[in-house]
Formats: sequence, structure tokens, C-alpha cells
Amino acid sequence: MIQVCTAPKTVLVVYAHQSAGSFNAAVKNAAVDELKKQGCNVLVSDLYEMKFKATATEEDITGEVKNPEHFCYGNETMLAWQEGRLAADILDEHKKLKEADLVIFQFPMYWFSVPAIMKGWMDRVLTLGFAYTLEKRYSEGIFRDKKAMLSFTTGSHETMFSPNGINGDMNVTLWPIQNGVLNYCGFQVLAPQIFWAPTHLSPEAREGLLEGWRTRLQGLLSETPLVFPPVDIFDEGKGFQLKPEVREKQADSPFGLTVGHHLEKPLPPHSMMKAGV
Amino acid sequence: MIQVCTAPKTVLVVYAHQSAGSFNAAVKNAAVDELKKQGCNVLVSDLYEMKFKATATEEDITGEVKNPEHFCYGNETMLAWQEGRLAADILDEHKKLKEADLVIFQFPMYWFSVPAIMKGWMDRVLTLGFAYTLEKRYSEGIFRDKKAMLSFTTGSHETMFSPNGINGDMNVTLWPIQNGVLNYCGFQVLAPQIFWAPTHLSPEAREGLLEGWRTRLQGLLSETPLVFPPVDIFDEGKGFQLKPEVREKQADSPFGLTVGHHLEKPLPPHSMMKAGV
Repeated sequence: MIQVCTAPKTVLVVYAHQSAGSFNAAVKNAAVDELKKQGCNVLVSDLYEMKFKATATEEDITGEVKNPEHFCYGNETMLAWQEGRLAADILDEHKKLKEADLVIFQFPMYWFSVPAIMKGWMDRVLTLGFAYTLEKRYSEGIFRDKKAMLSFTTGSHETMFSPNGINGDMNVTLWPIQNGVLNYCGFQVLAPQIFWAPTHLSPEAREGLLEGWRTRLQGLLSETPLVFPPVDIFDEGKGFQLKPEVREKQADSPFGLTVGHHLEKPLPPHSMMKAGV
Repeated sequence: MIQVCTAPKTVLVVYAHQSAGSFNAAVKNAAVDELKKQGCNVLVSDLYEMKFKATATEEDITGEVKNPEHFCYGNETMLAWQEGRLAADILDEHKKLKEADLVIFQFPMYWFSVPAIMKGWMDRVLTLGFAYTLEKRYSEGIFRDKKAMLSFTTGSHETMFSPNGINGDMNVTLWPIQNGVLNYCGFQVLAPQIFWAPTHLSPEAREGLLEGWRTRLQGLLSETPLVFPPVDIFDEGKGFQLKPEVREKQADSPFGLTVGHHLEKPLPPHSMMKAGV
């Protein structure tokens, strides 16, 4: 048998929980331990511990802003990035992100989304120019050689986040983050790791969830990502609408392409939660 | 003709843009002016100007936390609220929210969602106990006599946020915020006011958008809200799943109930963007 030598992978864990005693902390620690055991280089951005600044303001730019009367965060930070005038905490995260082969976002779901401190990481670190441009996004995205995934706890039970449940389908809830943030920047998006309502579980049941997570982590870096459509099926000249020939080809399918590109058909089942469906 | 005297309505504008010269500022100002003209009492929470704290931390509680080893933000802030130990900036927003008949969230869309500073307002101000409980949510929600709406600018054109467009259907993108935040707290959700890609428009075209907004504002307070399902169609005893008789009744419909409660059918068109469809 020939041993294949591969360069060690770097994993960045962007972590948002206030308490080291939380289940989220245990999940984060399990990831760090397991990935290190595999020989990975593991970086952690512990956002609350870092007192990470969540708000997108002029202070993110060193020196003068270009247009103080009509301050536009996207344009100003792109310029600042080009000219090396971005705030140090953003540059630190850029450095980690550049090194990372995989980014794991670990958080408790707040209001059907990420906590504000993590949204702030997305707003401030995914700088125009550095993380995306209008030419380089989605399947042509800057981070297309990297992977990313959400790992989170919920307050509600799984049944409540189904198409028949009171909160509606979790696949819909995940669309804006997994498509609009991760896929937008080109990341290959791995299936989310969802810990359903762990506070309602016994310590033994929670340990069981961690054990399942540790098992998944062993093969995580070689998992098949979720499927999103390539940009070239949209016609840039026509407002980035789906090309007619693709729409025709899809006519026979009982389902839309994705949750968002549903083409007035039923949503493809589990498309934001399971890979290879 | 008999003049009907009605008590003046209170409107809270939660506003998130860094620049007083922005189109978002102009939209906010138009709302303030127009609603004042109608005799409304208008309150504005200018989040960047207030340097609103976005992150959910222990500092939101005055005095000792109950469980410092396993700090849980939801439980701790509920207790602090009951005992009058919440941070002053949260209590200020609670006061405004209690007075408000309508809340308008005014923001530029960041990453398919609200900017982090506004997510922080939601995370911190919509306190467990004050804004919702497990018994009082959705159609039984605490704010069911209030209205709320999103008013925002996009970077992308409208075509790009359609079911055939590269970003996918805006109705899907709006679901987590409009259902998971606003409807969850019981608010009657008015159709969003979306300003598509105003930076790509001429000053005259932007003025036209503002004029349309002013016209809408004249009838805003009597608009019919978007439709969300009442909680009593879900069976609490069975994990808050849709009751079989409701599902049966829906069998003849070509569409699901909502974007999230799609029942494996095509999504009801425009349900998160237009009322009365």
C-alpha cells in the first residue's frame, strides 16, 4: 500500500457563544480536538471572547474615507482593502480566511439566523474585493476552493422546522445564509450540522449528539457539498435570468432547481440540509 | 359628514445606515415627514448614531447573572427583565416598542438579511417574556395589535431576486425575517417596501421612488397585512405539526400555505411581498 502524503488542512472555526460551559462550546471543542487529531491546523475566532466588533462603521477604515457625505460601506471598505487601510481586526480575519480550507460557523440560532456578532463577522470580514466581486461570485466565487458549513443549536424541536411544522421548513430558513453568504462567496457548502433543541435533552443524549458529531468530523473534509446552480446557466445580458434552454430542460423535473430557484415548482426536498439528494 | 376622531398613532422607525446623505436616510426622512404630517407620533432609533450595542452579552444584565457557568442569554435576560435588571438601552427600546402601533425597519440589505447592528436590535430588544413566550407567539403573539414592516434597499436588480434570477426568489429570502422575527412576535406584517438597486438609478429616478413611497405612506396604517397561518392549525401535542384536517382541506390547492409551510407544493406567489394575494 502506498501512503499518500497530503498537506495538512487548515480549518477556521468562527464561534459565537458567550459561555465556555455551553453545549455550543462543547461542540466547538469536539471539532477542534477531532480535527487536530487528524493533523489539521485549527484556528478559532471566538467572537465574544475577542469582543468582536459587529457593526460596519467608518472606524473600519484607517485614515480618510473617500466620500464622507455619502459614505457607502461596501465601496469604502473595498478601497481601504486595496490600499491597505482596513482595520486590524478585519485584516486578522482575512489572514485566517485565506489560510482556511474549511470554515465552520458554530452558533446558537437566534431569530431564524446567526447571532448579530456572527452577522457582524460576515458583514465586516467578507469585504468587497477580498471575498467577492460582481464578476467573481457563486460558482465563480473567490473562495471556490474552500469549504464552509453551519453548525448550530436550535431552541425548537426538529418537527417544528418541517414543511408541516409551526416554524416552517428549515431548508427555507437556511437559504439566505447558505446561498446568499456562503455560496455567494464561492464556498463549497457542506450540509449543516443541526443540534435540535439540546437544552431539552438529558446529559447522556447530548453526549450522544457530540459522539455523532465526532464521527462526522472524521470524514468531514471529504464530504460532497450541497448543490447550487453554476452561474453560467443565468444570462447576464438579460438581468441574470435563467437561460430558456435550462428552463426547458428542467420542465420534466417535478422539482425546482433549489429553494430559491424554485421555478414555481415544489422545492427539491432537503436540498439545504443533505448533500447528494 | 361626521368626523371620526381617532387617537394619533405612534410609529417607531428602526433605522440602520451610517450616512445622513444616503438614499436610506432620504427614505427614512420621507417616512418621518409624511407620518408627522398625518398627525402620527414618530420615534426614530437611529442605530449607528446611537452607537447601538449589537452583541448579546452578560453586560445586558445589571447585577449578578443567575448561572454564570452556563450563561444562557435568553433565560438570563428574561429573568433580568422580570426583575428590572436589564440594561438601560434595552429598556429604552422596550418603551418605544410598547408605544408603537407600527414599527418600520429601514436598512440596506446586507448579505440577504439585515445589517448586524439591526440584527443586534432584534436579538437584544425582543426579550423573552417581553416580546414572546412559548405560549404567546405567532398569531397569539404579544405584539398582535401592532404592525411591522421591512423597508430596504438592495444592491441587486429586481430580476436577480426572482425565482428565475441568479439570487433566487426574494419571497424566500424574506421568510426568516418576516416569519421568524416579525410574525413570531405577533406583529401584523405589512408588505415590504423594496427599493431595487437605487445606486444604479439617476437622481430623478430615485426621487420617483421616494414619491411612490410618500404615496404609499398616506395609506400605510390601514393596509391589509400579509397572511400567515394561525397557531391553532398546528397540533401542540404532536410537535406543532399541521393538523391532518387542515392538510386535507389544503389538498385541492395548487399551492402550499406559505413559503415555509409549503407542504411539498409550489410556493404561493408573492406571499412575502404582496398583501391580499
